[in-house]
Amino acid sequence: MENVSLSGVRKLKKSYPFQIPPQFVDFQFRVTMATLGDILLTTAQFNADDNGFGLRRLNEINCSWVLTRLAIEMERFPEQYENIQVETWVEEVGRANTTRNFCIRDEKNEIIGNACSQWVFFDMETRRAKDLQTLDGIHEFANGEASLIERPIKLGAVEGEKYDAFKVKYGDIDINGHVNSMRYIQWISDCFSLDRYRASQVKRFEINYVNEMLFGDAVEIIGHEKAPDDFRFEIRRDDKVTCKARVVF
Amino acid sequence: MENVSLSGVRKLKKSYPFQIPPQFVDFQFRVTMATLGDILLTTAQFNADDNGFGLRRLNEINCSWVLTRLAIEMERFPEQYENIQVETWVEEVGRANTTRNFCIRDEKNEIIGNACSQWVFFDMETRRAKDLQTLDGIHEFANGEASLIERPIKLGAVEGEKYDAFKVKYGDIDINGHVNSMRYIQWISDCFSLDRYRASQVKRFEINYVNEMLFGDAVEIIGHEKAPDDFRFEIRRDDKVTCKARVVF
Repeated sequence: MENVSLSGVRKLKKSYPFQIPPQFVDFQFRVTMATLGDILLTTAQFNADDNGFGLRRLNEINCSWVLTRLAIEMERFPEQYENIQVETWVEEVGRANTTRNFCIRDEKNEIIGNACSQWVFFDMETRRAKDLQTLDGIHEFANGEASLIERPIKLGAVEGEKYDAFKVKYGDIDINGHVNSMRYIQWISDCFSLDRYRASQVKRFEINYVNEMLFGDAVEIIGHEKAPDDFRFEIRRDDKVTCKARVVF
Repeated sequence: MENVSLSGVRKLKKSYPFQIPPQFVDFQFRVTMATLGDILLTTAQFNADDNGFGLRRLNEINCSWVLTRLAIEMERFPEQYENIQVETWVEEVGRANTTRNFCIRDEKNEIIGNACSQWVFFDMETRRAKDLQTLDGIHEFANGEASLIERPIKLGAVEGEKYDAFKVKYGDIDINGHVNSMRYIQWISDCFSLDRYRASQVKRFEINYVNEMLFGDAVEIIGHEKAPDDFRFEIRRDDKVTCKARVVF
């Protein structure tokens, strides 16, 4: 982009190192999708902080980033103790949204996965999206570079069988007072059996966050296999959709 | 102890640093009991490895450490990003059991909590406890120093109301193929409301592991308030007790 200064260019893409904690792998020693999502969120937070648009700064002006969509595609899931590098950059800054991409590499520098996330700039006072024009300098961080995978799309309505039902508990609630966004990924991942995970691995996980959930809410997970190995889910609170997801094996 | 060499003495107590990961704090920014338990287990693993009796060495001889009892007492729960030091030592090595203690300090070196754990030396082939006399040199690591808190005791049977019921899912299963021991702590912690955690904090958490649980098992949590702010729980699979716990606020 022509309007980016040299010092800006240096910040446009950055890699962050992580080690897969042994306590967050599954029965096959592979990192869980929810933990992977968590690593991506941490990466986003680090990079936003580095760029000067992290949550700490946004909270000062009573604003926040809200994750609305996320797609993750993995060729290989890193295992416990494995060191990975997560590269991230902002592809686009729109009216009230940003698109942030990720590329996950292993120790041999080989790409093992990619992700694409979409965020809304959120006014905590009005509880609405806010115009990003008011956030001076943010547009300079968009480098226009697409993700290596398709963006998360708006997922359609789901009719299907009830996979699970339970209440939101203490451990599901994060510091914002609502259900942690990675918990939804765990709930969806938990809809499959060990046999399914033994037989094949998740190729693409895609999620739309629609409505927040609170302590004590009655959760219902509805799902169906739309095409072979292509599952669609809806998480509902009462009859309201709080989240939609797609899992492709 | 007279029979400990100078090099042995140096290893008798050791501290390990941790930072509280922001994604594992509760709605009040405090580390959850399950994550704390996880930090203690990691500390135990580090120290056992340092002493030459870690899981990797034990696995070579087809043995393992199995956690049977754990008690944690906290004066203050560390918050997100806080740096803590966990000091650990082996108090006692018995016939087939060891007692390992922990002391948790904050950055000012003030004690914020203590823990005491009991482990069985387990033969993976016979699926039984094994005589620790066969593990050459382990007795040298017992320094006889008691924990600052009472040891976990054998908890009594519980009659009470049903707090929760659900099935064991994919994300509950660890690399050993059974439910992760910290998951039981989360399940028990999830029996209380946000209001309870707002009003007071857990002073003592105590757990007995009785039987393992597997994927698909139907979990039932029974509990009652035995004395004011003193709760007893039992986790059951069918009618078999898999775990007993005590939570004192």
